[in-house]
Amino acid sequence: MQKISLPRNVVMFKYYSPLLYSMLDYFFRPSSVAVIGASRNPKKFGYIVFQNFFESGFNGNVWPVNPNAETVYGERCYPNIMAINEKVDLAVIVVPGEKVVEAVANCAEKGVKACIILSAGFAETGNTQGEEEVMKVKGNMRILGPNVIGIYDSYSCVDTIFNTRYRQGRPKRGTISFISQSGALGAALMDWCSLSGIGLAKFISIGNRLDCDEIDFLTYLEHDRNTEIIVLYLEGAKNGRLLFEKLREIRKPVIAIKSGTTEAGQSAAMSHTGSMAGQSMIYSGMFKQSGVIEAADPEEMFDFAKVFSQPLPIGNRSRIQIITNGGGFGVLAADAIIHNGLEIAALDKKTIDKIANTVPKHVNVSNPLDLTGDADKLRYKAALEAIVEDDNIDAIMVIILFQVSVVESDIVNIIIDINKRCRKPLIICSTGGEFAELHRRLFEQAGIPVYSSPMRAAKALKALFNHVKYQITKIKNKT
Amino acid sequence: MQKISLPRNVVMFKYYSPLLYSMLDYFFRPSSVAVIGASRNPKKFGYIVFQNFFESGFNGNVWPVNPNAETVYGERCYPNIMAINEKVDLAVIVVPGEKVVEAVANCAEKGVKACIILSAGFAETGNTQGEEEVMKVKGNMRILGPNVIGIYDSYSCVDTIFNTRYRQGRPKRGTISFISQSGALGAALMDWCSLSGIGLAKFISIGNRLDCDEIDFLTYLEHDRNTEIIVLYLEGAKNGRLLFEKLREIRKPVIAIKSGTTEAGQSAAMSHTGSMAGQSMIYSGMFKQSGVIEAADPEEMFDFAKVFSQPLPIGNRSRIQIITNGGGFGVLAADAIIHNGLEIAALDKKTIDKIANTVPKHVNVSNPLDLTGDADKLRYKAALEAIVEDDNIDAIMVIILFQVSVVESDIVNIIIDINKRCRKPLIICSTGGEFAELHRRLFEQAGIPVYSSPMRAAKALKALFNHVKYQITKIKNKT
Repeated sequence: MQKISLPRNVVMFKYYSPLLYSMLDYFFRPSSVAVIGASRNPKKFGYIVFQNFFESGFNGNVWPVNPNAETVYGERCYPNIMAINEKVDLAVIVVPGEKVVEAVANCAEKGVKACIILSAGFAETGNTQGEEEVMKVKGNMRILGPNVIGIYDSYSCVDTIFNTRYRQGRPKRGTISFISQSGALGAALMDWCSLSGIGLAKFISIGNRLDCDEIDFLTYLEHDRNTEIIVLYLEGAKNGRLLFEKLREIRKPVIAIKSGTTEAGQSAAMSHTGSMAGQSMIYSGMFKQSGVIEAADPEEMFDFAKVFSQPLPIGNRSRIQIITNGGGFGVLAADAIIHNGLEIAALDKKTIDKIANTVPKHVNVSNPLDLTGDADKLRYKAALEAIVEDDNIDAIMVIILFQVSVVESDIVNIIIDINKRCRKPLIICSTGGEFAELHRRLFEQAGIPVYSSPMRAAKALKALFNHVKYQITKIKNKT
Repeated sequence: MQKISLPRNVVMFKYYSPLLYSMLDYFFRPSSVAVIGASRNPKKFGYIVFQNFFESGFNGNVWPVNPNAETVYGERCYPNIMAINEKVDLAVIVVPGEKVVEAVANCAEKGVKACIILSAGFAETGNTQGEEEVMKVKGNMRILGPNVIGIYDSYSCVDTIFNTRYRQGRPKRGTISFISQSGALGAALMDWCSLSGIGLAKFISIGNRLDCDEIDFLTYLEHDRNTEIIVLYLEGAKNGRLLFEKLREIRKPVIAIKSGTTEAGQSAAMSHTGSMAGQSMIYSGMFKQSGVIEAADPEEMFDFAKVFSQPLPIGNRSRIQIITNGGGFGVLAADAIIHNGLEIAALDKKTIDKIANTVPKHVNVSNPLDLTGDADKLRYKAALEAIVEDDNIDAIMVIILFQVSVVESDIVNIIIDINKRCRKPLIICSTGGEFAELHRRLFEQAGIPVYSSPMRAAKALKALFNHVKYQITKIKNKT
């Protein structure tokens, strides 16, 4: 048995197993990788996966394995994994389904620690026998897959996603990690995140979950220092009871979609990842009881996830201050806040005076605070600096419509600066075309989440406040 | 009294007034325009508005009026509107609030037909007296405003929107017309439409509604040949009873947001456009009874509007067929269809056989029809051609995830071609980054609406089917 050294700063939780943690680490931080089924044909997955390790900036050894090639992507190719003289931490298997068992057996013999089987054609097509055979030969190796698109780690640069980079963007580094039971859904959302400027720490496609499943990776991410928020797309739990206990235990915010909530969806899930979808009511109850934030659609998962880049609100209240340069958006925001069970903040008398002293007379200092269409960056600055100090306010929604020429681009810097000094959650609501998009991305890059509608913004705030409320209740129940 | 010639093909409705119609036409199709307050300073609204008429491709005469300038934008400037020797159909007033009454009086004297007052500082700031004075001097002129951003007509190229084109895009020509009580909200959404590839026929900012209001423009758009769908953002009706009757009468689909549905929103609306917001329940009931489709947020208005570019479904059923190359999106789509009260179609035996004969064995011919991750354009084509012919299907949701390399770009042409021959509504669900966006726009340009999540797609289909259901009920009640 190998000796295990624990990463520092790791707190021991109930289900935390140092062995498990250390073994899973080979998926994300291998010092060496073999791509079994590496191909010379740029159209094949075996080519794209091998190429990824070079284009991503991965910092370890990567070897191609293919009995029919001398070189792949300019690198010397090995006929089988045994022919590699050095130790291999991670094997990525991209061979056709019928050759997978042999490849896994070879990996086990070689002493590989972790193995990602990208190949399909197993339980999802009824071939459970194939999966049993893999389990028989795998030895101590941990297996991810089969039928997955694998792992993307923006920090270690492990990238087994077999979609070319021009078709599917890779998100920048961030604090959100994403576990998806569906590979294609995961790929589409990673692509969308990359365009939207949303950063990811890790992406994990769990597919058929022959060995490693959502519980393993939730445990891993719970202790992962790059991960602050966990996003989960699930068609069905492998073990509902265990999942519930794990979710209750995790202190990091978890945002989840459980699909297959209808009979039609369930039967679709059954033929997709071969998993029983389970009853939606049970899952909704489980999520609620374990403080998991349930999202209605994939974009909403990330709407919710990115709000956690802001400081958590303090206390039990949820009084929101709206600032806007467009009256209509202000009205919609007030509606959205109430509809989502949050409160409209009442400004302190001092704050009102402070703002009234700096803004023109036609500005009605209230909530929503409509700075009106002629508001420039200085008017926003004056209002925000007063609001940030007001103890009657728990969070701030800043609406900026960039269509009017009086809003200078460097309002972005002013707000980023205020946000740095502000201990309250501050989010932006903004929509538009190319010019607005440019500024939206600048905010996102600085960790200030931007929402395209007041409703989406209010829902995200609600998710944030609900998380805090759950944590407070949990602490109270313990004492 | 001038002689009025009615446009051909116009059916006479209860509230249709030829005179009203013909007068409002001067807002949208003037043969000559005077910009009163045209400026030499590129930062001023008076410059941008004047410039617009040149940049937009407007085909009539445009004259700048400014007593302090000799030329504006290279054009000879007039000290006042009386100095223009030719007839002026439309005057756009951009002078400071206190000079508006005089400008309006001059326009009336000159015989101007329609007048847009962009200037603010009236009822919205409590200056109702100023509005009364305008009404006193306006004569027979129709007035839009004050406190509006005016009109954008993509066909006639009238464009009084005082946001520069680099900050706010102008949408391409389309069949949707948009009435907004909030100017800034309208501008932001026009900008978003231009980026999203959603076409508009007309945009109208109704602001303080001193003279012309939502009823006038609803009546106008009802008969406008370029308008097929009407989108309405309202903070409060000027006359609730009349609005209700007008909405019941209109046969074109109307999609609306009524903001100020909460007390907080109402008081915000009061100080924004000075309009009483009214009770939300009453509005929701009014919308339901008049077949108006209510949207939850601004983007949803256009999600709903663009689905009407597809043929209306026939009959009372709403059986949807899902086709996908990503299992997870298929599961979510099945859930979303059921959650929105639509049905999952059951394919005809013949259709199943037809598809099964052309797709590989690992494809399970069902609904959702998961063509699996290795589906290429030909697999989509074969499946779609069979599905289009199936009488058990009322609408088709095609999910295409463009991240996988096997999906060639010209799948867009194949689907556009099938859509042309197809008499059923067909919509796309697709999400991702730049590559996916490129293809999304191609679909939108061809009039095939694209939605970024199955939930948004299903909600849009529901809006379409609800519209048809309402129309059928209306016809039944008449007979």
